[in-house]
Amino acid sequence: MPKLGKQTWVFPSMPRIMAAGTVAGPTEAAGPLGNRFDAQCTDSPRQTSWETMEQDMFRQAVQITLRKAVLQAGDLDLAIGGDLNAQLSSFYFAHRDVAVPAFGLFSACATFTQAMALAGLAVDSGVAKHVLVGTSSHNSTAERQFRYPTEYGAQRPLTAQRTVTGAGAAVLSLERGTVALTHATVGMIEDYGIKNPWEMGAAMAPAAEATILAHLQDTGRTFGDYDCVATGDLGRVGNAILTDLFARRGLVVNTDLTDCGMLIYRPDQPEVFSGGSGAACSTLVTLGHFVKKLEQGEWRRILVAATGALLSAVTAQQSETIPAICHAIVLERKDG
Amino acid sequence: MPKLGKQTWVFPSMPRIMAAGTVAGPTEAAGPLGNRFDAQCTDSPRQTSWETMEQDMFRQAVQITLRKAVLQAGDLDLAIGGDLNAQLSSFYFAHRDVAVPAFGLFSACATFTQAMALAGLAVDSGVAKHVLVGTSSHNSTAERQFRYPTEYGAQRPLTAQRTVTGAGAAVLSLERGTVALTHATVGMIEDYGIKNPWEMGAAMAPAAEATILAHLQDTGRTFGDYDCVATGDLGRVGNAILTDLFARRGLVVNTDLTDCGMLIYRPDQPEVFSGGSGAACSTLVTLGHFVKKLEQGEWRRILVAATGALLSAVTAQQSETIPAICHAIVLERKDG
Repeated sequence: MPKLGKQTWVFPSMPRIMAAGTVAGPTEAAGPLGNRFDAQCTDSPRQTSWETMEQDMFRQAVQITLRKAVLQAGDLDLAIGGDLNAQLSSFYFAHRDVAVPAFGLFSACATFTQAMALAGLAVDSGVAKHVLVGTSSHNSTAERQFRYPTEYGAQRPLTAQRTVTGAGAAVLSLERGTVALTHATVGMIEDYGIKNPWEMGAAMAPAAEATILAHLQDTGRTFGDYDCVATGDLGRVGNAILTDLFARRGLVVNTDLTDCGMLIYRPDQPEVFSGGSGAACSTLVTLGHFVKKLEQGEWRRILVAATGALLSAVTAQQSETIPAICHAIVLERKDG
Repeated sequence: MPKLGKQTWVFPSMPRIMAAGTVAGPTEAAGPLGNRFDAQCTDSPRQTSWETMEQDMFRQAVQITLRKAVLQAGDLDLAIGGDLNAQLSSFYFAHRDVAVPAFGLFSACATFTQAMALAGLAVDSGVAKHVLVGTSSHNSTAERQFRYPTEYGAQRPLTAQRTVTGAGAAVLSLERGTVALTHATVGMIEDYGIKNPWEMGAAMAPAAEATILAHLQDTGRTFGDYDCVATGDLGRVGNAILTDLFARRGLVVNTDLTDCGMLIYRPDQPEVFSGGSGAACSTLVTLGHFVKKLEQGEWRRILVAATGALLSAVTAQQSETIPAICHAIVLERKDG
């Protein structure tokens, strides 16, 4: 049965994470997970804009991943991923130098789990042997996309989140690896009427609630079946809202309900506000941190529920509400 | 064998187009295919912006499709598609009123065939019974995204293309329908160094060439195996370049090598220049026109190779070259 309930896909062949590569920005490298990432992005004289710097990080993450997987770019059957820039320019521009069939996706900070779900399907169904999943985000390219010109120095409220600078990639295949992708739960749009782009945690928490509940219902599992349930990037504010939403339903959350945006920065780091966000946030925390905990046997099984706030500069200027979505994946340690 | 060669996916279950719905803008409705579309979009006093008008067209196309398929929105397991707006705001905002698991994609004007490929995979693998594929574009939202404010009245060269206003949707399933999706060929990025955003046909023609050649090589077929090979929207200029590129290889193009952007407008319609473009262009021409020719037995098998120019306003301002991609699908009449 490749499908459970309404929203959950099952991957009977259990595609493995063969290898992963992560590149972190300076603030991310200075954070509590700094030593979990493979490389730190440093200013390069070759790069003349934030945008080309982001593309460079993506290419570096792919190179690290391929090296660890002992693969060439030509061994990849498909690359699937995205970023926060309009028209996915980081993902596609980075692929000018990587001759791989490529599918760009967008669901804001949920892009990583959306890409993992489709990569899992491609491997499981046999249309691809090696699928590269990759995302990137850059604090300054995102500011240019979504907010005021950086030069304005606009002040932010404490509910704001900091877009993570970084890139992460992984190769999924049936060949080897101890961490398997077993399920994906595809989310629906939730829009609770939040209009304030500094309140992304509030806008996204209902989508996280809906997808996690759908996952538990579809699979017949409980929170206790997971060593950790991590949302994509609700930040501290959104995590508190999600905890409240579950409590109001009388649900017992008997596991570690955490958030990638909370884990990537220390609360006392300057200008991180409610925590991290961005397409690279859940990618870096999952591939750099969670996957290692699974590989080392510290955890057995986790649920990563990445959340995306689907606003754009145009919709914000038109005073639209912010629709949100959450896609969840199950990663599980397999000894065999 | 679900995969042929490097880039081509095969769908052994041959998912069918159960139903399709198309909504065309005024210029498209006045074009040579005007009577092939289900509805014409008309100004609505409820819509206060071009962006909400585009969302409205998308919803209308979905409603028409569901009515023809005799399905409710709740019967859909997945919606997959996209548009040209930054952060896919048409696709996602339209889904605020449609409670369906949703995956947004972007490859500019190649979004339709990318979505068909992934929808075919979802149906073929059994993770979804009914998959909605949908795209939209709007001339004025695209002008706002990619070019000068409309109010400037900037003049265009004759190589320019007109972004199609319209929306199209289809439901893929194994249940019924005479037109089957049998193959998809996933394209790679091609960048020939074109920087001029008024030269999209030139930027995209090499991607169309690469994907069509990969398709023929992977499948062992020739042009003559198809009643029609239609590129997504190279326009008249790009079509001439593609014809040249094939001729230089000494290839005999013994079929109708046409282009959706050439078919949707008469050359003498005002301000259509080299032809149509936009995510809705290949969607409207394929679902409104080609699928009917297959259903009526006029054609047996076609290749639709939609092409996307992956520029953004930021990359254009940064004087970047324009990477392009092309994804192809095979549609075939099945009597059984």
